[in-house]
Amino acid sequence: MCQQFFGFESDAVTTENWESLYDNAAAKMAEPDWEQQVLSKSGLEKVFLTNDFDDPLTGFDTSLYVPCLRTDDLVFHFTKRETRDRLEKATGSSVSDPASLRAAIGQLFEHFTKNGAKACAISIPPTFSPAAVSESEVEPILTSVLTGRELSHDEAAVLSQFNFWTLAGFCAEYRLPFDLMIGVNRRVYEAGVFQGQDLYDSRVSLIQYRELFNAFPQVTFPVSVLAQTSNQELVSYAWIFPNVVTNGHWWYSNIPPHIELDCRSRLSAVPQTKQIGYYSDMYKLEFALPKFAMYRRILAKVLANDFVIDRGWSEERAIALGKLNLRGNVETIFQV
Amino acid sequence: MCQQFFGFESDAVTTENWESLYDNAAAKMAEPDWEQQVLSKSGLEKVFLTNDFDDPLTGFDTSLYVPCLRTDDLVFHFTKRETRDRLEKATGSSVSDPASLRAAIGQLFEHFTKNGAKACAISIPPTFSPAAVSESEVEPILTSVLTGRELSHDEAAVLSQFNFWTLAGFCAEYRLPFDLMIGVNRRVYEAGVFQGQDLYDSRVSLIQYRELFNAFPQVTFPVSVLAQTSNQELVSYAWIFPNVVTNGHWWYSNIPPHIELDCRSRLSAVPQTKQIGYYSDMYKLEFALPKFAMYRRILAKVLANDFVIDRGWSEERAIALGKLNLRGNVETIFQV
Amino acid sequence: MCQQFFGFESDAVTTENWESLYDNAAAKMAEPDWEQQVLSKSGLEKVFLTNDFDDPLTGFDTSLYVPCLRTDDLVFHFTKRETRDRLEKATGSSVSDPASLRAAIGQLFEHFTKNGAKACAISIPPTFSPAAVSESEVEPILTSVLTGRELSHDEAAVLSQFNFWTLAGFCAEYRLPFDLMIGVNRRVYEAGVFQGQDLYDSRVSLIQYRELFNAFPQVTFPVSVLAQTSNQELVSYAWIFPNVVTNGHWWYSNIPPHIELDCRSRLSAVPQTKQIGYYSDMYKLEFALPKFAMYRRILAKVLANDFVIDRGWSEERAIALGKLNLRGNVETIFQV
Repeated sequence: MCQQFFGFESDAVTTENWESLYDNAAAKMAEPDWEQQVLSKSGLEKVFLTNDFDDPLTGFDTSLYVPCLRTDDLVFHFTKRETRDRLEKATGSSVSDPASLRAAIGQLFEHFTKNGAKACAISIPPTFSPAAVSESEVEPILTSVLTGRELSHDEAAVLSQFNFWTLAGFCAEYRLPFDLMIGVNRRVYEAGVFQGQDLYDSRVSLIQYRELFNAFPQVTFPVSVLAQTSNQELVSYAWIFPNVVTNGHWWYSNIPPHIELDCRSRLSAVPQTKQIGYYSDMYKLEFALPKFAMYRRILAKVLANDFVIDRGWSEERAIALGKLNLRGNVETIFQV
Repeated sequence: MCQQFFGFESDAVTTENWESLYDNAAAKMAEPDWEQQVLSKSGLEKVFLTNDFDDPLTGFDTSLYVPCLRTDDLVFHFTKRETRDRLEKATGSSVSDPASLRAAIGQLFEHFTKNGAKACAISIPPTFSPAAVSESEVEPILTSVLTGRELSHDEAAVLSQFNFWTLAGFCAEYRLPFDLMIGVNRRVYEAGVFQGQDLYDSRVSLIQYRELFNAFPQVTFPVSVLAQTSNQELVSYAWIFPNVVTNGHWWYSNIPPHIELDCRSRLSAVPQTKQIGYYSDMYKLEFALPKFAMYRRILAKVLANDFVIDRGWSEERAIALGKLNLRGNVETIFQV
Repeated sequence: MCQQFFGFESDAVTTENWESLYDNAAAKMAEPDWEQQVLSKSGLEKVFLTNDFDDPLTGFDTSLYVPCLRTDDLVFHFTKRETRDRLEKATGSSVSDPASLRAAIGQLFEHFTKNGAKACAISIPPTFSPAAVSESEVEPILTSVLTGRELSHDEAAVLSQFNFWTLAGFCAEYRLPFDLMIGVNRRVYEAGVFQGQDLYDSRVSLIQYRELFNAFPQVTFPVSVLAQTSNQELVSYAWIFPNVVTNGHWWYSNIPPHIELDCRSRLSAVPQTKQIGYYSDMYKLEFALPKFAMYRRILAKVLANDFVIDRGWSEERAIALGKLNLRGNVETIFQV
């Protein structure tokens, strides 16, 4: 990234060369057309965002920066007064019972899809299991929340399940894929910097999603797992469930040896149209170039070794699979 | 398979060529000696079956199609009236208490071993833990079942444990290996086709089998695990327990990159006489050829890289290990 | 090992050649300077021990054989009368309450550090979760133990947590790294030989150590995991937590294909100064040579493939990383 964008010529950042790198980067990034330079040099045509549910989605080109409804707060932090206030403010409505809560969530889908949103997304702790919850079951719990009573662990889980299931229902209604990032534990290292506090727990199974995947056959679920140990389960679920797609979002396991292994098993066993190769979690626009370069090198190696050499595929056929994995499936699944 | 059996000449089945493939396959498979053609072309000398416990084992050559007592229904579906009726019908006996249940199961072993059965087999959900259960402990539970009362989850588990432990005891008495396929969750995708509904849960540990492996040192347990994440535990258990053998039955994880990894660690660390290379779960007679061809390619690659190149073994020595893994150990362990 | 130390010339130990090997080994090992021969031929400058907490640490050169306080008994077998007697005898003190227990443990640290100990170490079953326990909470439990009452499972866990947390506190005070070997199940194969009875359970997560790693930022925790499935979690924890170091102690998973995978992901993703390449669990002095030879071959292969070839590193840079991983980090972390 430093070599491509900032004219850096060394192999590593050291105490000797960091200052000139800093200066060059600062100068480059201050150029008025820097965003365009990055997009163009990186070959980026669209960037998929994850937006807070109360994002007005104004002030940017939504056909370039494609909105996505991020729903962690609605599902896992609805007991916080702040979340409920944000929901009421964003929708201009009042949440007083399950029906009005559902209606408010529906308004978010209306707002997001009107503004070109192509997906709903959520990251989920390893202990959560989605389940259908009736309005009558959640009603006393919701009333408790609204009147400021502290929920028990079990009550909070039921409320999370109700909101999650409501989101899945609206994904069906609005024909949006529902991206699931499964296995995140937040704030494990409390003294860590922003985005440097989270870890995961490999003791999670996709069996927790059995009811969900069966209940919403019309919703596509691009699923990414944090623990590499979950990859084989994901490959098998994508093979068995027509609505489960493997999503190449590796996050903390963003390590070439793991990506290579996962890539090998997905290319071998997941139906070709049901794999999204790489979803970079790029954080900064500049990160796309090195992250995709890394993934493309891994993908090229796997296609060459496992397909062209081991299976005798032609290079053209292997490249076509690579393009589907990198690009074609994204266009089909997210309808862009 | 299509190229070898049906004269197919393309690299992939497409919408253009499927019809002629279908016609050729239908014609070939209708030939009166098709079974012999497949056996001969595939190099098959014996096929190991898994038979329902009430299979009469008549009408086929049991020295070619070797019977095996499949016991899932006895252990996990004994609460169903249908299972008990089948048991009573197959054994001509009446099950009224633990002793008569045990006797009926013993009759199955008598029938199967008289007809050349070489193993007892079962597939087991990830939550099950075998344990010794006394007759007095299971008696009230069995009485409940026989009188049609619904069992609690815990009672059903005790009954499963009793039946499972009884099977292990008869394996000792009749000197049959007890094949364990550990980790199956049945009917996860309810709308799936037959044999396309099952998945697994990687949250399983062989520690659940500690009591079993210790209690029956005289019984050989060829163990296969569904989750690749369990492979290393299995390798270690086979290293420590003299009666545990790794079984190459990969099922849903039947993916070359996983098989290659598992194969590498098993060849490295499991005693040479305690590894069954590949147990294909072939479903159809025609599947043996491509499945074993895949495994043999992986095995050859691992022997070449890890043994001949990395360890300086002679090719002869590597091939001898390959033969033991593929064939010799099967003959010894199943006494064929 | 046999070739290097005993003049063995074959590739494998067989029924034909074992006797002359036995004779040669017996003769060599009886030579008066055998220990020096092994040290010199193996290139060993120091050996890190794990010593019982009541080891007098006399009769050997502690700058060559570096002591380490092994604490399994204190944490997991303190309910045994024998452990308490040993503690009282070793410290010449009487344990009657939490304060005197803490003081006795402190005396062990005093004794060990005076004698050159460079670490505290413990192996931990997969179910254990460290937690801070107050003296008032543990007091009635400790009283029960001292008066011979049997503890409940939960009470015993609290006592283990108190002792463990006390050890971590003294590691902070005495500036000792605390080696954690996570995931051991002891005596699984009861009929096994010494050091051939233990296995592990892959259902463990480092999330269980969240409170510990946050509470003692000043203590370095070299962590090794038994299950290969835990390696990716460990890599991520070492990346996030400044006080977590990956320790290359693979034990039962001491299998080249696993070590290679783990080595690849650690070299890729763990900060370079926070990885201890190989900690051999060597048992016998003679084992160091073949064990480190195995690891060095794996390390060399990974450095060559993943760094020199794939990333274009110079050989010098790769070798420097290898030296840090094999040797430099050990010197820094254990202050030798």
